[in-house]
Amino acid sequence: MLPTIEWRDGRVIMIDQRLLPEKEAYVECRSHEDVAEAIENMAIRGAPAIGVAAAMGVALGFGREAKSGRTEDAFNRVTERLRRTRPTARNLFWALERMKSVFEQNRDASPEEMTSRLEAEALAVEAEDIDINKRIGSAGRSLIRDGMSVITHCNTGGLATAGYGTALGIVRAAFEEGRKVRVVVDETRPYLQGARLTCWELRRLGIPHVLITDGAAGWLMKGGEVGLALVGADRVARNGDTANKIGTYSLAVLAREHGIPFYVAAPVSTVDFSLADGEGIPVEERSEDEVRNFGGRPVAPPDTPARNPAFDVTPARLIAGIITEHGIARPSFERTLRSLGRS
Amino acid sequence: MLPTIEWRDGRVIMIDQRLLPEKEAYVECRSHEDVAEAIENMAIRGAPAIGVAAAMGVALGFGREAKSGRTEDAFNRVTERLRRTRPTARNLFWALERMKSVFEQNRDASPEEMTSRLEAEALAVEAEDIDINKRIGSAGRSLIRDGMSVITHCNTGGLATAGYGTALGIVRAAFEEGRKVRVVVDETRPYLQGARLTCWELRRLGIPHVLITDGAAGWLMKGGEVGLALVGADRVARNGDTANKIGTYSLAVLAREHGIPFYVAAPVSTVDFSLADGEGIPVEERSEDEVRNFGGRPVAPPDTPARNPAFDVTPARLIAGIITEHGIARPSFERTLRSLGRS
Repeated sequence: MLPTIEWRDGRVIMIDQRLLPEKEAYVECRSHEDVAEAIENMAIRGAPAIGVAAAMGVALGFGREAKSGRTEDAFNRVTERLRRTRPTARNLFWALERMKSVFEQNRDASPEEMTSRLEAEALAVEAEDIDINKRIGSAGRSLIRDGMSVITHCNTGGLATAGYGTALGIVRAAFEEGRKVRVVVDETRPYLQGARLTCWELRRLGIPHVLITDGAAGWLMKGGEVGLALVGADRVARNGDTANKIGTYSLAVLAREHGIPFYVAAPVSTVDFSLADGEGIPVEERSEDEVRNFGGRPVAPPDTPARNPAFDVTPARLIAGIITEHGIARPSFERTLRSLGRS
Repeated sequence: MLPTIEWRDGRVIMIDQRLLPEKEAYVECRSHEDVAEAIENMAIRGAPAIGVAAAMGVALGFGREAKSGRTEDAFNRVTERLRRTRPTARNLFWALERMKSVFEQNRDASPEEMTSRLEAEALAVEAEDIDINKRIGSAGRSLIRDGMSVITHCNTGGLATAGYGTALGIVRAAFEEGRKVRVVVDETRPYLQGARLTCWELRRLGIPHVLITDGAAGWLMKGGEVGLALVGADRVARNGDTANKIGTYSLAVLAREHGIPFYVAAPVSTVDFSLADGEGIPVEERSEDEVRNFGGRPVAPPDTPARNPAFDVTPARLIAGIITEHGIARPSFERTLRSLGRS
């Protein structure tokens, strides 16, 4: 397992994903504010990992803030702060709702008892995430035939989750079964999660891979070098429209053009059943500096206007299947996702 | 005019495009070897600019090498060195063929006289390129309607040519006519010609623009933010298949998906009438380090395998028109390009 995030002695420890692969350093969060900032500044990222961090942040924050006795105020203050960190990933809100249920079911508990229940719930979210990832791996691994090249975007491995991975977990599951597989890694500008994080993980796991610029994906597909596209998700609407890292939509259009099956891998907690389609998914626009600079070095004149949507929405019609811990949902997703969601 | 390349007192001076936009510095070439290295290491790039540089390199090299009297050997040695610099851009070979014609038509000339004729020809290639660019601008500018957003890839401005630009020259011509236009600039990884060079040029010209990552192009198109796609070319086969900077093919597929007209702008000298289609175009594979690193800083583990095709080939079926100095060639290109080539 990768040390993505850990609860240790009343603190939350995360590997600082901004510094990889150059440096393995850790962020230590002593308050929910520390956790909120780590989510905002992307020390931790990846929808399932953000969910785990938020759950731990609630436990951490409540334990510190509720000493005065006004526990409901404390709980709301803590969750409200965490809710405002990033708008797109469904798992963040899902985790906060789950913590809220625990709070509401234990209204009579003392602050100490409540803290301990919230801690237990956060640890359960973490443990379940790893289990869910492995089940996603089992559900999806047969899509990868021996000798296949699989293209992926962003990072969906252990670093994006509590420790195994969604789309990359499927690759891992196929590899662990002894199948020959090669991963074509989109570098994923502007934040370079593919180059920095996915390559780092694949190297540690010994899984063959090759790094490309995002713009080269179409050309490699045209050359017959890609057999399958596998990506993660930040939020899935109930019709299957999927928000994921910027560039995913382009990849899906290119996959369709070349007859390459395009699959999304995500836990059911990523599905937002309140949204009819992708129109309702809020897409975060991040700082223009992420596009204008790289590693503190300018790549364009400093006052260049830039656009930096952090996500895009891939319409369901481009998606062959959504691989969840309960199996693969096939179109039409409205029906199949609801049925898997009830599993 | 931008100071892309200049013949001055028996030397070739080029702006060092590797250092822009941070630093305006110049490379001074005193031999054809210096010019060859400047082309190889991309101090100068852009198909028409490479053509001008090669022509000047021949004049420079011949003047130095032919003093012994074995002028044919000297000419062949110089042109052979320049021919081996980069494989894809047609304009390089076109310029060398043009210099060879001058050499063959003046076989009886003294080395000094030959040198002076080759110099005159190189300066003619340079002057004609600017004129051709302006005529491309006139031929294409009416495609840009008032208020339009035009997406472009790589750099096709003054820096890619002797001084005005091909695709970006068309934008400039429309802008100079008073039309409101906004350029959506693909940053163009790995070499970032869009971010570094196109934004720098557009800023100097006062033309509104916005920088995006290559992966964001599809999402902006889906949002209705792009009305036209305009790119350059490194080599066009006689059926219209077009080699251009890696990422162009993906952009063309995305443009088709969204009903956005996709045009190529290039001088007729970019058309390789010896090639039936794009299959025959050699695509340069450059160093993996361009993908693994940026500005000397690693973006992936140092031993990560990478692929770095510098170009891709966009099939003619995705191209609405090829804008040349003699007008716009429309499909089917086999007929229209040949007819424009005879103009």
